[in-house]
Amino acid sequence: MDLFVQNAWHPDHGQVDLEIEGGVIRAMGRHLVASLDVQVLDARGMAIIPGLVNAHTHAAMTLFRGFGDDMPLMQWLETRIWPAEAKLTEEDVYWGTRLACLEMIRSGAINFQDMYWHYHGVARAVEDSGLRAGVGAIFIDVAGKEQAEQFKQQAETLWEETSRYSDRVRYTLTPHAIYTVSPETLRWVAEFSEKHNVPVHIHLSETQHEVDTCLQQHGCRPTQHLANQGLLTERTFLAHAVHVDDAELDMIAKAGATLVTNPVSNMKLAVGGVFPLARAAQRDIPIALGTDGAASNNALDLFQDMKTFALIQKHADVDPTAAPAKLVWEIASGARAPIFGESGRIEVGQAADFLLIHRENPEMTPEHCFTSNLAYAATGHMVDTVVVDGRILMRGRHIEGEQEVRREAALRARALCEAL
Amino acid sequence: MDLFVQNAWHPDHGQVDLEIEGGVIRAMGRHLVASLDVQVLDARGMAIIPGLVNAHTHAAMTLFRGFGDDMPLMQWLETRIWPAEAKLTEEDVYWGTRLACLEMIRSGAINFQDMYWHYHGVARAVEDSGLRAGVGAIFIDVAGKEQAEQFKQQAETLWEETSRYSDRVRYTLTPHAIYTVSPETLRWVAEFSEKHNVPVHIHLSETQHEVDTCLQQHGCRPTQHLANQGLLTERTFLAHAVHVDDAELDMIAKAGATLVTNPVSNMKLAVGGVFPLARAAQRDIPIALGTDGAASNNALDLFQDMKTFALIQKHADVDPTAAPAKLVWEIASGARAPIFGESGRIEVGQAADFLLIHRENPEMTPEHCFTSNLAYAATGHMVDTVVVDGRILMRGRHIEGEQEVRREAALRARALCEAL
Repeated sequence: MDLFVQNAWHPDHGQVDLEIEGGVIRAMGRHLVASLDVQVLDARGMAIIPGLVNAHTHAAMTLFRGFGDDMPLMQWLETRIWPAEAKLTEEDVYWGTRLACLEMIRSGAINFQDMYWHYHGVARAVEDSGLRAGVGAIFIDVAGKEQAEQFKQQAETLWEETSRYSDRVRYTLTPHAIYTVSPETLRWVAEFSEKHNVPVHIHLSETQHEVDTCLQQHGCRPTQHLANQGLLTERTFLAHAVHVDDAELDMIAKAGATLVTNPVSNMKLAVGGVFPLARAAQRDIPIALGTDGAASNNALDLFQDMKTFALIQKHADVDPTAAPAKLVWEIASGARAPIFGESGRIEVGQAADFLLIHRENPEMTPEHCFTSNLAYAATGHMVDTVVVDGRILMRGRHIEGEQEVRREAALRARALCEAL
Repeated sequence: MDLFVQNAWHPDHGQVDLEIEGGVIRAMGRHLVASLDVQVLDARGMAIIPGLVNAHTHAAMTLFRGFGDDMPLMQWLETRIWPAEAKLTEEDVYWGTRLACLEMIRSGAINFQDMYWHYHGVARAVEDSGLRAGVGAIFIDVAGKEQAEQFKQQAETLWEETSRYSDRVRYTLTPHAIYTVSPETLRWVAEFSEKHNVPVHIHLSETQHEVDTCLQQHGCRPTQHLANQGLLTERTFLAHAVHVDDAELDMIAKAGATLVTNPVSNMKLAVGGVFPLARAAQRDIPIALGTDGAASNNALDLFQDMKTFALIQKHADVDPTAAPAKLVWEIASGARAPIFGESGRIEVGQAADFLLIHRENPEMTPEHCFTSNLAYAATGHMVDTVVVDGRILMRGRHIEGEQEVRREAALRARALCEAL
């Protein structure tokens, strides 16, 4: 036994104790007995619940939180984000990602899917933070064949180098989007993904402009274009997916691909549409929730984004019964997207990835419906304890090394942005 | 001197100390000296900012938080809310409002505008919590003239009885809506308001149905109907105001009335429209932000609602520059709605109503733009200290009597709802 949790309240089973060994829940029940010398977590007054999955982010962009908000999209990218990103070093990315990991742990995420520059900066930060992550180096070839070759070579190298890290770091292919990666390169990505059984993480149909351009250039909508390159598979997850029609959803369902919605980012950047939750759920398409980067969200707290997700769906459908709390909770906790490996269940045999969350606070009182409280009343600040792979990452809201991470990231953020 | 704040960071002036006496900021500057025996608040690492104004709520509805979420509106009202409300006693309302006050203090609200049953239950809770509030007894006369007479009599009585309380409790007239109060009674409210200089708090144009019914029954839109009864004045504030056209906004601007937007509630109940921020701001109409009750929001944290407000405006206008952080902050802190008496400024001569908020935490790091961090990255949990009228209501997130309030409210909520 590595860890013993006592007096936790399980939403389905009431008061339970848990034995954890080798990163797995080995036993759960009433009145279990802790072995001598094992670390004991007393969870009195707290519920034990699955952690959340942040299924699309650019973690290191915490460095640019609040840098150029409320600007037109292209002006923001051209005068703020791209010049700042051009200056980023691997160390900057390491500290920016560490800051993101701090914030995600503090708000109950246990697993995130990243797409960014300086792969090893991200991977080391994940390793050091204790979280799980799919890590990918952004892949673009707008500059032509030479750039494509560089990125392919980099993919091969990184794929091998990922063995340096623990199983918590999962190598992921991250071609940026269909408008920044050529069809030839997308086909190469598809082959690599199949050969090595590697997930593919790509932006898709975030804006109507992307759809219109695809129709013009390729004579089909983006999902069809992706399928034409062999990239619409059960290994693929598609971020945003705002502007997708029914025929595309049928294809996605048939292929077994996963959709990731990013409601806060979509609203902040005003992409002019809403993720088609009802139409996707009807087709049993796997669905997950992402914050996107802190530059287009400002926060990485999935509890808050869960609420915004439910609200924008109700608003868009003009239907207060749309996006009910239970569905939104299942989506946020990864239960609806097996590709991310989180079951959304606290049961014997499951990975020891969970949160202890305060039930006894004003914001969660009364408790007419615990799931409603999670989806609509909670914020990440109600999380007391985070355990990933059987290891305690936060306890009593304390995370080891927090001050150093915050200070180093703040210094680097200032240095990167102050001259711009 | 009653209170001395040292080492606070003021967004406009940098490091300052403050002297507070008689509920007012008497001096502010660097290196002031505290008088002997005065209570000193050390604000090192924290910013001093105005508190927030919750300009439309039904505070005691915290008792129904999460009770019947995700239901169709009429089914929810008929099977959940109305039967539960029918059982409410003044003591229930007192404890429900105390719970709401706890939550509002914890999330940085210093002033709220309430509309609910059992006036003295609300007023006593405000008195005991230390917050400021406009308190009003809901006024309806759907049952006819006898009911109208009852409510008029009640209004006269309550208006006099309010002198029992401190100046923090402000008597407010709260006719429910144009579809639940007759034109005759609305005219009586208008006269009472003018005679006693009392604010009028009313729901207006929350749904298209309300507009359509008004057009049918009165041959004009709701704002015109309100004006026809003499109720569109600078003493009036209108909650929701989703379905208002340009001619109505012109009338509202001319009359000097205030609009209160409730974005989370509107989205959760799927009212099918969005508050016309741009059109209202163009006309310099006073604007404030409200959570609505916890039954149609689930939380009373204006920091979260500030973000949702900005997001839904950007989404609705398909414009990322809509509802910029500075405007949203001014609206949430009452600077844009003089009727509520909060200036939104921390300056000498202003009421000693303010928050101390942590700057040094991961969620607010880096600090490229403090106002952006407030509007988009903060939650109420970043508030460390709340001072209202020179009195400390929360310090280090501790509020006196919190446990008792939470427990009593939870017990009453369960008793009210369990048989339904």
